[in-house]
Amino acid sequence: MCDVNFKQLEKANIGDTVEWQNLQSKVKFDQDGLIPAIAQQFDTKEVLMMAWMNNQSLQETLQTGRVCYWSRSRQNYWRKGEESGQIQLLKELRFDCDGDAILLLVDQTGPACHTGRRSCFYTLIDDDKATITSAPLISPDTLYKK
Amino acid sequence: MCDVNFKQLEKANIGDTVEWQNLQSKVKFDQDGLIPAIAQQFDTKEVLMMAWMNNQSLQETLQTGRVCYWSRSRQNYWRKGEESGQIQLLKELRFDCDGDAILLLVDQTGPACHTGRRSCFYTLIDDDKATITSAPLISPDTLYKK
Repeated sequence: MCDVNFKQLEKANIGDTVEWQNLQSKVKFDQDGLIPAIAQQFDTKEVLMMAWMNNQSLQETLQTGRVCYWSRSRQNYWRKGEESGQIQLLKELRFDCDGDAILLLVDQTGPACHTGRRSCFYTLIDDDKATITSAPLISPDTLYKK
Repeated sequence: MCDVNFKQLEKANIGDTVEWQNLQSKVKFDQDGLIPAIAQQFDTKEVLMMAWMNNQSLQETLQTGRVCYWSRSRQNYWRKGEESGQIQLLKELRFDCDGDAILLLVDQTGPACHTGRRSCFYTLIDDDKATITSAPLISPDTLYKK
């Protein structure tokens, strides 16, 4: 068992594998112990949201196949869909070249965004204007049963 | 001229617009003055990379239509392609619902990754293994004329 780092993997060939347990200590969490995670719908390739994981939520996501983030505002685990019912099933989890960002290919039930929209990225900046580019699929009041 | 924040835009309808100059002071940079920016190829929808912007690199990107990041390792502006020639032309710039993440739809010339691969997200974690899923399009030695 010998550890490998992301720098060493830069020279690896397509199809090469290493044990995850020999790489996982090299994941680069920030000063708060967090790493950004991008969620992309696996089939349409729409980017749905960006949130944060800590080491424990990363491990849980890999083990359960359901995406778990760390909520910075609530300072707690955020099992996507626990409250709203709009879960994210994990299809693929990828790291970037230097191990400080995660790309999650997911199958998102309904809206990913707390506003009820499919994607959080609905505010387009163009021609000195900000334009709202999508409407909620479900009212947030219904989503959170307020 | 009255300022608007991202919270207020949650209730806006599709097609609604506000002046960018009335929203831009509400962009949420972190304690280091940075915001994460995801680059996605506009036509194939492949997620290419994630990097960081500060306010000045965001403004420059909007003004020039060429993506400029802030390099945390070099503590300097990072005009994508300045050294490698592999530029990112901006097609769309979007904020997420709470204004703390950016999605860039870009047209990327050649590889986005410093390893010469098209995307930085080439390390797949699956079945307790890390697998390299793509090969360089160009050798990094050629890319950076070393």
